[in-house]
Amino acid sequence: MADFSFEIEEHYGQLSTNAKGWAKELTKVAWNGRPAKYDIRDWDPDYEKMGKGLTFTHEELKILRDCLNKMDLD
Amino acid sequence: MADFSFEIEEHYGQLSTNAKGWAKELTKVAWNGRPAKYDIRDWDPDYEKMGKGLTFTHEELKILRDCLNKMDLD
Repeated sequence: MADFSFEIEEHYGQLSTNAKGWAKELTKVAWNGRPAKYDIRDWDPDYEKMGKGLTFTHEELKILRDCLNKMDLD
Repeated sequence: MADFSFEIEEHYGQLSTNAKGWAKELTKVAWNGRPAKYDIRDWDPDYEKMGKGLTFTHEELKILRDCLNKMDLD
């Protein structure tokens, strides 16, 4: 992992936090200097360590939004 | 993985598909007989194989929806 790098460009919102202060969060992250992608994963309070997560394209995130708006979550 | 089991209880929408027919999809899945959780991951066309993914509580999914609705994605 010698060349591993990341930069969080945007923080859109924390979905939850746990007892250790880690937060499941929607962000935009540039991994290894590549163009930033939308991303959902757990982060430690200092944003130095992360859990496994998923990245999303802009189009995927729009479809996800439309999908969630059709669900009866409230 | 001898005792590994899953049942997809709901299909809410495919966010994308790739050339091999795998789909990134929002579903509700009961893992190992436990109560079903919301889930985003890649599935093969027969829903027999899966990629790594994330599970979400009802509350997390509501927050994610609200978060996406505040973003200017269109």
